[in-house]
Amino acid sequence: LVGKTINNRLEQQICFLVEVDKLKTIYRKNYVIGTDRRETDAEHSWHLAVMAMLLAEYVDDYPIDVFKVVKMLLIHDIVEIDAGDTYCFDQQAGVDKDVREQAAAGRLFGLLPADQSQELRDLWEEFEQKQSPEARLADALDRLQPLLLHYHTGGKSWQENGITSDKVRERNKRTKDIAIELGQLVEQVIQDSIARGYLRK
Amino acid sequence: LVGKTINNRLEQQICFLVEVDKLKTIYRKNYVIGTDRRETDAEHSWHLAVMAMLLAEYVDDYPIDVFKVVKMLLIHDIVEIDAGDTYCFDQQAGVDKDVREQAAAGRLFGLLPADQSQELRDLWEEFEQKQSPEARLADALDRLQPLLLHYHTGGKSWQENGITSDKVRERNKRTKDIAIELGQLVEQVIQDSIARGYLRK
Ligand SMILES: [Ca+2]
Repeated sequence: LVGKTINNRLEQQICFLVEVDKLKTIYRKNYVIGTDRRETDAEHSWHLAVMAMLLAEYVDDYPIDVFKVVKMLLIHDIVEIDAGDTYCFDQQAGVDKDVREQAAAGRLFGLLPADQSQELRDLWEEFEQKQSPEARLADALDRLQPLLLHYHTGGKSWQENGITSDKVRERNKRTKDIAIELGQLVEQVIQDSIARGYLRK
Repeated sequence: LVGKTINNRLEQQICFLVEVDKLKTIYRKNYVIGTDRRETDAEHSWHLAVMAMLLAEYVDDYPIDVFKVVKMLLIHDIVEIDAGDTYCFDQQAGVDKDVREQAAAGRLFGLLPADQSQELRDLWEEFEQKQSPEARLADALDRLQPLLLHYHTGGKSWQENGITSDKVRERNKRTKDIAIELGQLVEQVIQDSIARGYLRK
């Protein structure tokens, strides 16, 4: 990749790190606040990692392994480089999402040395299973972050995609079970979005 | 911000998290691989955090606190929301950079509750001082990441800004002192960039 004399392990790591640059070319449905362009997966992942640093304290069974949450969030969307961004409200595309993402995880994490490949695959599987406190917080933040962006962009993306408050509430329903204050925040943002006309009731 | 009933601490945290969305609107000099658009600070910060996860093992006095490195990198450019991106090869703009960034750190981290405000300020100051092993690794990665992107975009940004190999070598000279293999990688990328005509000797 960058010459033949660096060691094989480092070469695999750099190959992976160059490949995942593509996460900056995957665009999501939601807009960046104050702009008319959509957010990239890389930006979304950064934002989530910062949220985890600051909001982990709200998890009811705190302390949890916050670094694990951060690592999960940093890598949770990497499979979308091959599998694409499946819009969360799209039932159709959701059907073969699992198959596409498993293949993507195999190829992408497989670029790394075996130990790190396994570590990232395990983090991603744990995130996908949404069972551990760390994975449940990561999942709740992955739903809260776009909610905040939708709210602060006047619900533009909700309106473009005909999203109603029921769908948003359904999508964020498990947040209160992992962190009660974050669950209250979700409900307040939804209600205020309806009141302001950003979101259809 | 999002209603009046959420507690004050959470409101401050959300206010900060919404404010730092602006990191997605700060564009750097380097391009995203395979595109003709520049990278945002948020994307850069995400990429660095993933690099730290995978490359921390090369630090000569390993083990270090990898989570600290990741946290530093996630927040290291937030001051640029107010202070702007100072191009690393621009001597002129560098002069009042410190004053602008200190003011920015005060306002931005000051949005948070006092304890988290202090924690992030301390992380940022430690990063800026480049003394601890964690800060030195973070700094080395902050220089290695754009080097990899310059290389994989044919040196486009180097050419636009008249950058020569001496300047790139000078900018990355401390990497070998914190992680010898990463220092070798830097030198190989520079030499290969010259050989390929991406970078002027
Ligand atoms: Ca930087």
